Amino acid sequence: MAKKNYKSMDDFATAAGVSRPTLSKYFDDPSQIKEVTRKRIEAALRKSHFEPNLFARHLNRKRTRNIGILVPTMSDPFYVQVVSLIELELREKGFWPVQISSHTRPELEAEAVRTLLSLKVAGAIVAPLGAGSRRSALERLRDAIPVVCFDNPADADLPYVGNDNAQSMAAIVQYLCRSGEPPIFLEIPHMTENAGERQAGYRATMAREGHSPLVIDCDAPPSWEFERLGYEQMQRILANGSLPGKTLLCANDRFAFGAMAAAFASGLKIGRNDACDVRIAGHDDHPLSRYTCPSLTTMAQNAPEIAAKSVELLLAHIESEDDGTTPVTNKVILEATLVMRESA
Amino acid sequence: MAKKNYKSMDDFATAAGVSRPTLSKYFDDPSQIKEVTRKRIEAALRKSHFEPNLFARHLNRKRTRNIGILVPTMSDPFYVQVVSLIELELREKGFWPVQISSHTRPELEAEAVRTLLSLKVAGAIVAPLGAGSRRSALERLRDAIPVVCFDNPADADLPYVGNDNAQSMAAIVQYLCRSGEPPIFLEIPHMTENAGERQAGYRATMAREGHSPLVIDCDAPPSWEFERLGYEQMQRILANGSLPGKTLLCANDRFAFGAMAAAFASGLKIGRNDACDVRIAGHDDHPLSRYTCPSLTTMAQNAPEIAAKSVELLLAHIESEDDGTTPVTNKVILEATLVMRESA
Repeated sequence: MAKKNYKSMDDFATAAGVSRPTLSKYFDDPSQIKEVTRKRIEAALRKSHFEPNLFARHLNRKRTRNIGILVPTMSDPFYVQVVSLIELELREKGFWPVQISSHTRPELEAEAVRTLLSLKVAGAIVAPLGAGSRRSALERLRDAIPVVCFDNPADADLPYVGNDNAQSMAAIVQYLCRSGEPPIFLEIPHMTENAGERQAGYRATMAREGHSPLVIDCDAPPSWEFERLGYEQMQRILANGSLPGKTLLCANDRFAFGAMAAAFASGLKIGRNDACDVRIAGHDDHPLSRYTCPSLTTMAQNAPEIAAKSVELLLAHIESEDDGTTPVTNKVILEATLVMRESA
Repeated sequence: MAKKNYKSMDDFATAAGVSRPTLSKYFDDPSQIKEVTRKRIEAALRKSHFEPNLFARHLNRKRTRNIGILVPTMSDPFYVQVVSLIELELREKGFWPVQISSHTRPELEAEAVRTLLSLKVAGAIVAPLGAGSRRSALERLRDAIPVVCFDNPADADLPYVGNDNAQSMAAIVQYLCRSGEPPIFLEIPHMTENAGERQAGYRATMAREGHSPLVIDCDAPPSWEFERLGYEQMQRILANGSLPGKTLLCANDRFAFGAMAAAFASGLKIGRNDACDVRIAGHDDHPLSRYTCPSLTTMAQNAPEIAAKSVELLLAHIESEDDGTTPVTNKVILEATLVMRESA
């Protein structure tokens, strides 16, 4: 009987009735697999011309150890914090992170994708621009290498790690309601899906608590300069007369920074004791929030877990691609923690 | 007469009595060079078998368009600001920046150098760790590709762009002296050369102004977490009794952030009007300094020029290396600008 030819490891594995990873294991170290399976492979080998193409088999190990990290802007301390943690986690696992910012510009996000591909990174962890993202750019990246998103799920198909905005808004709204006047929500421009989710979480919790929600939209052209937007928004509110209430909940810490600065500059006292004029809270607990005057009450996103899970998912997807298997986990949504400080 | 053989463009240029860049120009576009030189090259060509190896001649153009940017930490908004400006400048000039942090750790700085070399970047812009840098790592980088340093001149041999700390300290010390009590200097750990230069600038200016300098050393293990150090230092100062004076000048804005937060938390009023207890000033004008409560008086490093000159120097050095010439400029020291805000 003529011996059979097989074009690839996959073809041979199918013919031998074993999985591709099992076949790889056999070639790496036959003692790793069950004897019955080993015998089946060896029988199939004897009946074939098949010889593993060692170069091809190791091609997947010829991936670089470099991993790309792409975020909208490093001017946002939240991204800085998560990226730093991702970088340290990757280095610990023997990978080399390279970071690229899209500077919140769609055309630079698309160019960053090209750069990452030219650097032949083994995979990428991406916080997409969101509203402004060019779908085609991220699709090109995803088609070429394993990709995990964090902070903003650009595409339902991609593995994603993010914050549970419904849970986090519920926690801080409930806290503010039970400790004083129910909060008014200071909206930010909807640059990512987080903004909409947080507003929805605020409205839902206020309704559950039996209060009417009041959302103040940001009357400014969309921008990522949240401190400036918060400052100007608070100036506009104060210019229109008195505050609409004694408790303001900002959609993120950076907006709260600006709002606090404008309130302080106009002579208002910010804080949670009775002598103060206004309570201001934020969301994110970015690294400088503990050093504002007063320190900022906020919801701490679980930055260490966002980083750890992003790395874990990415490495699982790289490994799966190498093995031809399907990874189990595709989505991780993490709860945030209330951080009570002096501002509210 | 037998025609001569030449192994390289360099050999042929020498034999023809022209420079290597001139020879390159001739092959690119003969009309670019003087007629007498052109004739000399053409005469030499006729007498030789020399034909330019187009591949070799374009080797230097086969540099990637990627440029590495290496900084100690992106948790420092000053680095974030300068890196962002460098990235935008590079993109405008058709280069693709990739950013790596050393996370303030010498072993990660050395690894970052290896990563940059493995990515085959055409050049690198580096803010060295300073005190902690492994000299050998930066030397390896410098030996392989053109490198420009900013913020901290690790090595006198490398092109450098930085702040004129003598000028900037003189400006803010003079301002504080003429607007109130002479300042006490709150020292930071000497992680880079800036710290020492700023203290020296403070001392020199106080002496010129006829005041005794008073430097309060930072009683803590060296660290890059300047906000925390500033907070704890101010707590220690206040725990020891009253403030040593009404005007505090911090060696950088991040330290001033922490010092302000601790002063505020202990009930002190910060600001420049007479009703306030203490004036606090910083140095750097990093992006959040205008949003503190009160906004921070500081010296604005010329971040746009630091970024622009770093890129300009690097591209000049890459071009020179390709042409075999020596670039003229190696060092750019930039003046800072006083930014008077509410804190002092």
